Amino acid sequence: MTNTQTLKGFRDFLPKNVRKRQYVIDALKKVFESYGFEPLETPSLEYEELLSGNYGEEGDKLMYKFKDNGDRNVALRYDQTVPLARVVAQYQNDLPMPFKRYQIQNVWRAENTQKGRYREFLQVDVDTVGSYSPLADSEIINLAMDAVSRLGFKNVTMYINDRKIFENLENKYISTIDKLEKIGREKVLEELIEKGLSKEKAEQLLTKIENSKMPESIDEIIKVFKKRGGFEVKSKPTLARGLDYYTGSIFELAIEGLSLGSIGGGGRYDNLIGIFAGKDIPAVGFSFGFDRLIEAMEELDLFPKSLNVNDVFVAFPSSELQQKTLEVCQKLRNEDINAEFYLEDASLEKQLKYADKKEIPYSIIVEDNNLVFKNMIKRTQENLTLEEIIKKLSV
Amino acid sequence: MTNTQTLKGFRDFLPKNVRKRQYVIDALKKVFESYGFEPLETPSLEYEELLSGNYGEEGDKLMYKFKDNGDRNVALRYDQTVPLARVVAQYQNDLPMPFKRYQIQNVWRAENTQKGRYREFLQVDVDTVGSYSPLADSEIINLAMDAVSRLGFKNVTMYINDRKIFENLENKYISTIDKLEKIGREKVLEELIEKGLSKEKAEQLLTKIENSKMPESIDEIIKVFKKRGGFEVKSKPTLARGLDYYTGSIFELAIEGLSLGSIGGGGRYDNLIGIFAGKDIPAVGFSFGFDRLIEAMEELDLFPKSLNVNDVFVAFPSSELQQKTLEVCQKLRNEDINAEFYLEDASLEKQLKYADKKEIPYSIIVEDNNLVFKNMIKRTQENLTLEEIIKKLSV
Repeated sequence: MTNTQTLKGFRDFLPKNVRKRQYVIDALKKVFESYGFEPLETPSLEYEELLSGNYGEEGDKLMYKFKDNGDRNVALRYDQTVPLARVVAQYQNDLPMPFKRYQIQNVWRAENTQKGRYREFLQVDVDTVGSYSPLADSEIINLAMDAVSRLGFKNVTMYINDRKIFENLENKYISTIDKLEKIGREKVLEELIEKGLSKEKAEQLLTKIENSKMPESIDEIIKVFKKRGGFEVKSKPTLARGLDYYTGSIFELAIEGLSLGSIGGGGRYDNLIGIFAGKDIPAVGFSFGFDRLIEAMEELDLFPKSLNVNDVFVAFPSSELQQKTLEVCQKLRNEDINAEFYLEDASLEKQLKYADKKEIPYSIIVEDNNLVFKNMIKRTQENLTLEEIIKKLSV
Repeated sequence: MTNTQTLKGFRDFLPKNVRKRQYVIDALKKVFESYGFEPLETPSLEYEELLSGNYGEEGDKLMYKFKDNGDRNVALRYDQTVPLARVVAQYQNDLPMPFKRYQIQNVWRAENTQKGRYREFLQVDVDTVGSYSPLADSEIINLAMDAVSRLGFKNVTMYINDRKIFENLENKYISTIDKLEKIGREKVLEELIEKGLSKEKAEQLLTKIENSKMPESIDEIIKVFKKRGGFEVKSKPTLARGLDYYTGSIFELAIEGLSLGSIGGGGRYDNLIGIFAGKDIPAVGFSFGFDRLIEAMEELDLFPKSLNVNDVFVAFPSSELQQKTLEVCQKLRNEDINAEFYLEDASLEKQLKYADKKEIPYSIIVEDNNLVFKNMIKRTQENLTLEEIIKKLSV
């Protein structure tokens, strides 16, 4: 008997879930495009040598890599930034500069699934390549806030910091300070001491960082958003994120009152995009945690009640009315209304049960001289002409 | 120096191409949804044992398979039908029956790239699972024709046959007869003779098949479309397609006058979907050749002139006007108009050059007391208020 399970960490998305995911993707794309960001897609497989070495030891371990049929060492896409760096090197003369692109594709990582992580998941990245201007940073921040706003999130805070705050500080201390919010001040001090600081030095260091003055560039970015209502942009000198990667501003988007914390983050990284082009190319970007976004929307009940509002099911009580049913469906479709009928000869009850299972919000029962229009949610019905039905559904 | 090339048979899609592909995907989805087909997504990786053995010797050879980090034998999605069979087995109680789903995801095949084939390509499949009714066949045919019609294709013919026409005939002869259109009658006869038939028998066989009477079920399907204008549905007794797979109707969509022949096909396959569920489950489906569809649309010039009609570029002649520019952009975006500006301090000329490179159809030049609205294609310009501009762009 064949194993019909999916691999651990891999998921099927049944229609209802695909629709939810598509709803979010469409909303995000709309916002990205509204700022002039353009879509990019890169292959799922690349030469392994292109990818490996760019994600640290951890990354090399989690990467899906293998020998293909032609004995080439290949690897599955691990993120969308290294492929972007390749694209920038490969097509430098064809791309407009600054190059503003978004990319929404799967990546694969052999994560520990016990931690609730997936091995195939969608990444949503927005990056501006080729500009040192703080305007590029603030545009990305603005866009990220517009995006979550479009999805219905309120009480959103963007925390901002500058990696220069941590200059000359060892990475091991930085990663501890980054945990301040999560584990509290006491625990951070304990951990700093464990890692080798005296009690006094630990207290001094933390206090110094907590009271750091933001560099002018960050102040400038924050100033831009003073006028913007509904969202907060706050400096947070203890925010670190993946430091080896970022070179300037770093930001993190948090929804207050939500259990799962940050739903995205980003920053400026001026040393990475140029690696294949052989020259310095500045960049700033933001990455949405797509699965987190979906979870957060579920938790806050932000999805529209029905994602198939336009749908109508057309039922026929006897097979002589099948031809009329087909015609009704086709006329509805011509008016951009989604319409379907039950493919088998079956009782009206069975037909409507199918419509119910598919959660189709409206039904039409085709009768000889009549159309009965049913609202399946409110459980109401009335006799209407096809024209009246079309009018109702086209609102 | 790192190899910055993409793998043979794998492609980057730069913005203009992603937009074209997205345009086609959106149009197809719209039609699929209008018939009540719902989206499904399955993982890129599956257990190898689930996939292998289902695609013949050729398939097993072309499949991307490897051992993952947990020493499991895994394989990349080779088609969308075997995963559909798994989904049907795994979620039988949750799915509405008939289950009408579409699936638009990449598949991977280590094809010979010299034949112009890709190793990663998008498949677009529409299938109805769980119905023996010929209505299901004709619905799929109708949908396929609606889909290409929506994309602007004219002179479309759907050829239909029934695999029963070939009953008791060896596969090697069938594959030759299938080539009739491509290589002509003489060559088909030659090949049949080469494959072991006498001259007389070859002539007899071909004539017999060419004059086969369609089974009643096919006649019924064709009858449904008699009333439909603009498209032809024709029986074609020599049409074969992948025979081992299909069990009833087979169909192929051809655009007359197009160099690349068929842009999609499908048929009824009642023995495959049940393999994992352990029972017979009928199915009928259609698969669009996505890359061919794109090529055909290019060849026939069916893409809209601009796929970013809504875009406007906002330029500022001096940096004091930057703030006003940002505000203009934000107001345009609030009206669902895509608006962007140049992120760097630069001359007006350089700004407009960037807009040109991105093929943005409209520009606004922000002046102290004025907005100059430029149509970048017609090369015209006029002074307008923001409200007037919004009105123009919202049409």
